[in-house]
Amino acid sequence: MSAALYVALLHYPVYDKNHKLVATAVTNVDVHDIGRLSATYGVPKYFLVTPVEQQRALVREMLSHWLTGHGATYNPRRKQALELAVVVPSLADVVAHVQQETGKRPVTIGTGAAQRDGTVSYQQMRKLLAAWDGPAILVLGTGWGLERKFQESLDYNLAPIVGRTGYNHLSVRSAAAIMVDRLLGAD
Amino acid sequence: MSAALYVALLHYPVYDKNHKLVATAVTNVDVHDIGRLSATYGVPKYFLVTPVEQQRALVREMLSHWLTGHGATYNPRRKQALELAVVVPSLADVVAHVQQETGKRPVTIGTGAAQRDGTVSYQQMRKLLAAWDGPAILVLGTGWGLERKFQESLDYNLAPIVGRTGYNHLSVRSAAAIMVDRLLGAD
Repeated sequence: MSAALYVALLHYPVYDKNHKLVATAVTNVDVHDIGRLSATYGVPKYFLVTPVEQQRALVREMLSHWLTGHGATYNPRRKQALELAVVVPSLADVVAHVQQETGKRPVTIGTGAAQRDGTVSYQQMRKLLAAWDGPAILVLGTGWGLERKFQESLDYNLAPIVGRTGYNHLSVRSAAAIMVDRLLGAD
Repeated sequence: MSAALYVALLHYPVYDKNHKLVATAVTNVDVHDIGRLSATYGVPKYFLVTPVEQQRALVREMLSHWLTGHGATYNPRRKQALELAVVVPSLADVVAHVQQETGKRPVTIGTGAAQRDGTVSYQQMRKLLAAWDGPAILVLGTGWGLERKFQESLDYNLAPIVGRTGYNHLSVRSAAAIMVDRLLGAD
């Protein structure tokens, strides 16, 4: 059996473009794109994580449009994707949710655009996931990426996505798609 | 030498959700995400293709904000991505542009979410691109995908992205990211 891979999109603790610690606003298109990605690759749930209650309320309101409002009949396939979303204040809540759902403690896998020591390659992580019997959480940061010490506190950290140039500013939506495909896509 | 891979995002001829032939509106976030993807993977240019002149004018206006307006100094990395964008009425214009830029006739590579006969796998296309000396254009459809006969008129068609479920409704942004990574990403 291979690991169930969950996805968590963190809006705190992340940097802004001046390397200041901030809570970013939730972006609608992230919620849609990562939901559709999760539905495609069998990600059981994806988490929108922000400590700002007003932001969580906004996301819940948007979700209810697609899950029970006009959107549910207008586009049932979108409903299928968005019903995988869970809105929580912190990564600790994500871990608790996954542990309750699966009965096992999940491992956390950090991500980021910067080169750093001790990262795991996609091939290595693919093998780890295939061999691992419990759940895992892919942790993505919005803004300019996860706060450094927070990222170091995670169980693993994936190597950054390196394309064919020095440019390393993919959107978090594109990064999520590439990472999930590399970890769960067809061989 | 391997092929230079260009990307073209078509807003016509595509289907809407009722399988009606339409011209979709250009989505801002597509322009940004595919620009950042192109800058990462060394895609020389990406094309926003719509026959609707008003839409092309809107995109040009948005681009000028990031290329020469306030956005250029606010976020120079975004400028670097968006200066790869070219706005044109049709795929014929894309082909002409690439031919003029490279001196060679490009091959066109269609994409779509539906299973169909005669598609080429990502591994096969990666090898074709590595062996091919001229330019190639990855053709993506917005809305519910490229019109069937139009798609069949292209030189090649890539297999759809298959995840781990039957769900095949990725956003075109996610699909573009996964496809470009599969074709140009590190081995």
